[in-house]
Amino acid sequence: MTGAVDLAAALASFGEAFQPRIVGHYNDSKIQVAKVRGEFVWHSHAETDDFFLVLSGRLTIQLRDGDVELGPGELYVVPAGVEHCPKADAEAHILLIEPTGTPNTGDSTEREAAPEREL
Amino acid sequence: MTGAVDLAAALASFGEAFQPRIVGHYNDSKIQVAKVRGEFVWHSHAETDDFFLVLSGRLTIQLRDGDVELGPGELYVVPAGVEHCPKADAEAHILLIEPTGTPNTGDSTEREAAPEREL
Repeated sequence: MTGAVDLAAALASFGEAFQPRIVGHYNDSKIQVAKVRGEFVWHSHAETDDFFLVLSGRLTIQLRDGDVELGPGELYVVPAGVEHCPKADAEAHILLIEPTGTPNTGDSTEREAAPEREL
Repeated sequence: MTGAVDLAAALASFGEAFQPRIVGHYNDSKIQVAKVRGEFVWHSHAETDDFFLVLSGRLTIQLRDGDVELGPGELYVVPAGVEHCPKADAEAHILLIEPTGTPNTGDSTEREAAPEREL
């Protein structure tokens, strides 16, 4: 049977940071893997929660009222409308779930949104 | 900051198989951890996809036309309406995402659905 997704293999197939790759779909959401290196941009998604699960490395999700620190096997859901800015001092690998069509930069105009790319 | 979920710690807090615990919410979906030991029941969810990510151990998702075998870091989304029956010879730990309100037994009447339990 096909259709199983090996997340480590998916992550090994590309190098760029902040350029998620879609590895599957769950209803109207895209299931993505992404690499985080350095700091992204502050942004929010008015209409949707933002699901982060760290697969390897350490991720800091900066929020306006404090940081959420995540290691492997730890998840955090940024509630809809909440400003956040992910960062990682060393490369971190994450699983990211957002509705299909959601730009990874949310409402930010500081940075171009990554294209929606199927792996 | 609170709100980060350590999946291994969540899994260590209970023992029963096929009794998912809700560890968070993503929009209208419940994010759950579950233990799989032995075989569940054949069922489908007419209205929703079913997201499985293996965290530890090995999971077989039996489908009517073949099995999907998953190890740690591997995911599979059972499409809406597709009959499936998860099983694991040795205990497997999984992350499971389904819309809130979805019974884990889907359309099966062979087994009582697990209650929706927040961890």
